[in-house]
Amino acid sequence: MIKVTVYNEFIHEREDENTRSVYPDGIHNAIKSAVESDEITVKTITLDDVKNGLDRQLLDDTDVFIWWGHMAHDLVPDEVAEAVHQAVLKGMGIIFLHSGHHSKPFKLLMGTPCNLTWREDGDRELVWVCNPAHPIAKGIGRFIKLDHEETYGEPFSIPEPDELVFIGSFEGGEVFRAGCCYRRGNGKVFYFQPGHETFPTFKNPEIITVIKNAVHWANPDYRVKELECPNVKKPLE
Amino acid sequence: MIKVTVYNEFIHEREDENTRSVYPDGIHNAIKSAVESDEITVKTITLDDVKNGLDRQLLDDTDVFIWWGHMAHDLVPDEVAEAVHQAVLKGMGIIFLHSGHHSKPFKLLMGTPCNLTWREDGDRELVWVCNPAHPIAKGIGRFIKLDHEETYGEPFSIPEPDELVFIGSFEGGEVFRAGCCYRRGNGKVFYFQPGHETFPTFKNPEIITVIKNAVHWANPDYRVKELECPNVKKPLE
Amino acid sequence: MIKVTVYNEFIHEREDENTRSVYPDGIHNAIKSAVESDEITVKTITLDDVKNGLDRQLLDDTDVFIWWGHMAHDLVPDEVAEAVHQAVLKGMGIIFLHSGHHSKPFKLLMGTPCNLTWREDGDRELVWVCNPAHPIAKGIGRFIKLDHEETYGEPFSIPEPDELVFIGSFEGGEVFRAGCCYRRGNGKVFYFQPGHETFPTFKNPEIITVIKNAVHWANPDYRVKELECPNVKKPLE
Amino acid sequence: MIKVTVYNEFIHEREDENTRSVYPDGIHNAIKSAVESDEITVKTITLDDVKNGLDRQLLDDTDVFIWWGHMAHDLVPDEVAEAVHQAVLKGMGIIFLHSGHHSKPFKLLMGTPCNLTWREDGDRELVWVCNPAHPIAKGIGRFIKLDHEETYGEPFSIPEPDELVFIGSFEGGEVFRAGCCYRRGNGKVFYFQPGHETFPTFKNPEIITVIKNAVHWANPDYRVKELECPNVKKPLE
Repeated sequence: MIKVTVYNEFIHEREDENTRSVYPDGIHNAIKSAVESDEITVKTITLDDVKNGLDRQLLDDTDVFIWWGHMAHDLVPDEVAEAVHQAVLKGMGIIFLHSGHHSKPFKLLMGTPCNLTWREDGDRELVWVCNPAHPIAKGIGRFIKLDHEETYGEPFSIPEPDELVFIGSFEGGEVFRAGCCYRRGNGKVFYFQPGHETFPTFKNPEIITVIKNAVHWANPDYRVKELECPNVKKPLE
Repeated sequence: MIKVTVYNEFIHEREDENTRSVYPDGIHNAIKSAVESDEITVKTITLDDVKNGLDRQLLDDTDVFIWWGHMAHDLVPDEVAEAVHQAVLKGMGIIFLHSGHHSKPFKLLMGTPCNLTWREDGDRELVWVCNPAHPIAKGIGRFIKLDHEETYGEPFSIPEPDELVFIGSFEGGEVFRAGCCYRRGNGKVFYFQPGHETFPTFKNPEIITVIKNAVHWANPDYRVKELECPNVKKPLE
Repeated sequence: MIKVTVYNEFIHEREDENTRSVYPDGIHNAIKSAVESDEITVKTITLDDVKNGLDRQLLDDTDVFIWWGHMAHDLVPDEVAEAVHQAVLKGMGIIFLHSGHHSKPFKLLMGTPCNLTWREDGDRELVWVCNPAHPIAKGIGRFIKLDHEETYGEPFSIPEPDELVFIGSFEGGEVFRAGCCYRRGNGKVFYFQPGHETFPTFKNPEIITVIKNAVHWANPDYRVKELECPNVKKPLE
Repeated sequence: MIKVTVYNEFIHEREDENTRSVYPDGIHNAIKSAVESDEITVKTITLDDVKNGLDRQLLDDTDVFIWWGHMAHDLVPDEVAEAVHQAVLKGMGIIFLHSGHHSKPFKLLMGTPCNLTWREDGDRELVWVCNPAHPIAKGIGRFIKLDHEETYGEPFSIPEPDELVFIGSFEGGEVFRAGCCYRRGNGKVFYFQPGHETFPTFKNPEIITVIKNAVHWANPDYRVKELECPNVKKPLE
C-alpha cells in the first residue's frame, strides 16, 4: 500500500464561487477520491494544518506527497517547507501540481526561480507525450486534450529535467514543459503543469491516470539512510 | 576563422518548381550566403559530390558541418555517413537541419530511430526559447514566428537532449523539441527543426542568427586526440 | 516472470585453461544459475547460435538481454547486432557486462566509440555506490570489493549517462564509470564494468545482486509501439 | 576582461600554523596571483567583508565568483548567500572549490545536502579527466597527480551533473566526482574538489589551469534578463 499525503492550501474553494462550484469539497478531496485505490491510500492536509507547523510523524508515514498551492505560498512556514524538502532528500517521493511551481519546497529542491509566463484565458491545452515508454505516460495516447486550462509558457526557469515526459501546447501558441522528472537526494520529484482551480482538470480521467502513474513512479523502491558527511576510515582497514 | 561545410542533397530545388522559386541556387547556397561573415567561411557540397565517396581532407578541414537532406538519405553511402560520424567523434561540430533528423549520420550519433510525426499543411510555427541564456539563443526574443513550416510533432525518438534550447508549437496544436544540443565523443551536435524546402525559412534573419550562433557553439574549443582503447601501464610507474 | 536471455560468446572458456577453471560451464551458465529465481527465468545463447543469424522469436520473447563478449565482437553478424539494437528501441531492456563495452549493439546504442584504457594486472577493485537510492544499488553497502579485476580506466568515451550508479577504483589508481544507465528509444540500457573472464566476479554475491537488480530495473514497465514517423492529421480534426 | 571575485573565509591561515606556512597571504591571494592574466582581473574578499552583508555592486561587477570556505559556512549571513545565489541565477558564473561543497550558496543552487565522506590522511590523489574535449580540461593530460589531498569519497549527494569532467581517486581507494558542471538559471556552476588548506594544491600549475579554464567556461556568453513570472498577452496579439 502506497501512503500518499495531499496538501492543498484550500483557499480558492472557500473564497471563490467559481472554484467552489468545480471543487465543492476542495481540490485535495477531489484528488483523494480520484487517486485512492487498492494500492494507494490518501490523507489530506490544508494550509490550516501547516501554518503553525507540520507533524513530523506525518512525513515519516508518507511515501509520496502531492502539493497544490497558489495564492498562499508565503503562508507556509519556512520550517514546514524545509521539513518537506528534507523528507524528499531522505527518499519520500513528491508531485507538484500546477501553481506548485512557485511553492517553497519546489524552489528549494530546484535551486532556481521556477518562473514562467502565464495567461488566464481558458485556452484549450494539448498535453503531448514526448516519452511514450515512461511509466508516468502509461495508458495515455498521443496527447491529453483539456478544453480549458490556465496558459503557462516558456521559459520555465528550472534545471534541465532528468526526464521530460510531457510538453503542453496552448490555443494561443505557447508551449510548456508540462511533465518533468527529477531525482534529488534519495527522492523522486515530478512536476505536472495542468490543474487550474477554476477548471475540472482533476476530474479528467487521463489526468488522474498520470497522477496515479506518478505516485507509483515516485514511490521509493527502498529507503536508504543518507550518510551525513561522516569522517570515515580507510575503506580497506 | 571557423571553417563550415554545408551539405545539401540538392534534389528538391532541381525537381520541384515550388522549391526552386524559394531557393533558386539551392538551400546550401542560401545558407552559405546568409552565414558567411568575417568569422565564418563556408564551403558547400551536394549529393552529387558524396554519392561516390567523400574527400577525407574536406572533413579534416571542417570545423562545423551543416547537414540538410530529405528525400535521398539512402543515397548517401554508408561510408560517407560513417566518415562524418567519426569526424564528429573526433571533435568536428555538426548541425542537422529539419529533415536531417532521418539522415544517416544523425541516426548513427543518436543511436535511436529519430522518428516523429509530420503534416504538410503550412502551419504557422512559433519557435519558443526555453533556455534564454544559452549561447545558441543569443539575440532571439521570446520566440521566432514562422508564417509557414512543415509540422513536426512529438514523440521525437531521440535520447534526452543534454540541453534543450527551443520548443516549437504549430497552429494545429503539435509541439516539437526544435533545438536540441548533444555532446558525442569530442564533438558537439545541434539539431534544429525549422527549414522545410518550400518555405523561405533560411531567409528569416532570426533563423540565420540561430544557425550562426550554433556554428559558434559547435566550433570545437580545442582538438584532442581520442585514445583508441590503449593498453596502458600503471599510472604511477 | 521476467524472461532473460544471456549471450556469451563462449570462446575463452573453451580455449583458455584459466578461464575454464573459473567458469567450467561458461560465463552464460554461471550467470544463469546465479540469476534465476522465482521472478526471473533465463535462456542462454552463444556465438555459435548467432553467427549465422538470430531467431527473431527469441528477441520477441525476451524482456531483458544480458551481453558478455570480448574477443569475437566482429564475428557477431551486423544483422544480429542491428536486431538486438532494434529490440531495445522497441522496449527490451539490456545489460552489457565488462568487455561488452565494445560489442556492436552497445556501440550502436551509444553512437560513440566506447573506448577506454585497460591493464591486465589483476588489480583489486572497489566498486563504489554513488547513487545509494537507485534500485540497481539496493542491498549494496558503500562499495563492493573485488580482489582481482581487469583494470578499466577513464576516459570512457560514452554519452553522459542518464544516471551514474557506480564508479570503480583500482589498486593502481585508475577510476572508471562502472555502472551507467541510459534510456534509448523505449528500452533501458545498463552498462556494468566488472566481469573479466579469468576472475570469479560472477560468483560474487554482491555482483549477482547488482545484476538481478538491473534485470528488474531494465524490465519494461509496459510495451508501447514506436510510431514509425507517420504522416498525421491535425490533432483536433 | 573577465572580472573575477574570490571569496575565502580566511580563518585557517590566521589560526593554523600549517596552513599559514602554505598560504601566508591566504588562499584568496594565492588564487588571485595565480589566475590573474591579460584576460582575467581578480578582486578578493573574506569572511570579515561579508559577515555584515555584501555590497550588491560587487556582485553586479563580477563575471565569475570563486568560493573557498570550510569552518565558518554558518557565519556567512543568509542574506549574503541568497544574494550570491540570485546573482548566479541572473547569469554570474561561479566556481566552488573543495570544502565549498557545504557552503550556503552551493547548497541553495543544488537543492541537495551535498554530503560526502572524508578522511584527513594526506592521501595521494589522481584527478582523472573523463571528458577530454571539455573546455575545462584543456591542457590537462590523462590525470593530475597531487601528492597529498584531503580524501573525499562517494556518495556525494548532488544532482546528477550536467557534465562530469573529472573523477578523483585516492590512495586509500575512494573515488569522488571531482569536477562537476551545472547550469542553474542563467548562470553556470562548476564544483572542483581539490584544494585542502594544508596542502599546496593552489600552487600546482595544472590545478591553476583548470581554475582558469573554468573561469573562461563560466564567464557568461551574454546577459539576459530573467522574466519574473509575468502575466503576458497572447503571443500573436
